[in-house]
Amino acid sequence: MKWHELSEQPCSVARSLAVVGDRWTLMIVRDLFLGATRFEQLRRSLKISRTVLTDRLNLLEAEGVVKKRPYQEKPTRYRYLLTPKGMDLYPVIMTLVHWGDKHYAGENGPPVLYQHRTCGHDFTPVLTCSECNGELTTLDTRVHFADFARHGKAETA
Amino acid sequence: MKWHELSEQPCSVARSLAVVGDRWTLMIVRDLFLGATRFEQLRRSLKISRTVLTDRLNLLEAEGVVKKRPYQEKPTRYRYLLTPKGMDLYPVIMTLVHWGDKHYAGENGPPVLYQHRTCGHDFTPVLTCSECNGELTTLDTRVHFADFARHGKAETA
Repeated sequence: MKWHELSEQPCSVARSLAVVGDRWTLMIVRDLFLGATRFEQLRRSLKISRTVLTDRLNLLEAEGVVKKRPYQEKPTRYRYLLTPKGMDLYPVIMTLVHWGDKHYAGENGPPVLYQHRTCGHDFTPVLTCSECNGELTTLDTRVHFADFARHGKAETA
Repeated sequence: MKWHELSEQPCSVARSLAVVGDRWTLMIVRDLFLGATRFEQLRRSLKISRTVLTDRLNLLEAEGVVKKRPYQEKPTRYRYLLTPKGMDLYPVIMTLVHWGDKHYAGENGPPVLYQHRTCGHDFTPVLTCSECNGELTTLDTRVHFADFARHGKAETA
């Protein structure tokens, strides 16, 4: 597949980044994974304005990444929770964590460690193939069109 | 670990997103993975201004994610290549691809498929534990401080 052909295709990276493609949005998702649920917790943690936080939470809610549930009346206050679609961002967050740990942790190493409850060990995340369980690297990945995309020009003509 | 304790720690997600935390930056990295190497290829693919592209490439070069190599003189033109640190973003890109494929592909499914050369099959990426090879999910991950971070206040006092 030539690069210029591919770049014209609808791209899942582009679609993902249209939703989570700014720093604050993924930081909000990180905080929700870590257990934050309230607007004020998020605002204090991220040190961002109410306007920016409201804007990003509204986008995440509209996209079905976050749902809000009232926990108080008069005034109504909401708890923010990740939906299953939001939970599906876990691998994105963990691969970002790992890249940061590898390249930006100081000489002490990462300040925060991740333990896998199932086996009890601290882990680093490894990206593997759903079919053979082997580790994936850029060098052993080939990109190709799905059949409908390869023959798809007639459909859109 | 309480959420408010954690949110005050240096965070690898924050550090990562300080470098790659905007849409264009990760789209540039995506295009470099797909084989683009030249400024004009990137500019046409992403439909962004020269100023924004130059700014993002300069950041990526300063952070050691991208290196540039001259391929022409008078005027000097450069090829942009991912460094090993840039290659390490492959899992971030692939988990973003997968999230987009899962939640934003139309009824035809994703237009672009990824084949694992080693086993020959089209795959989806699975995040696994470096220690037991089991699949990782948010529910079986526990977050805790590294020893130096837990006892670290004296070091910074």
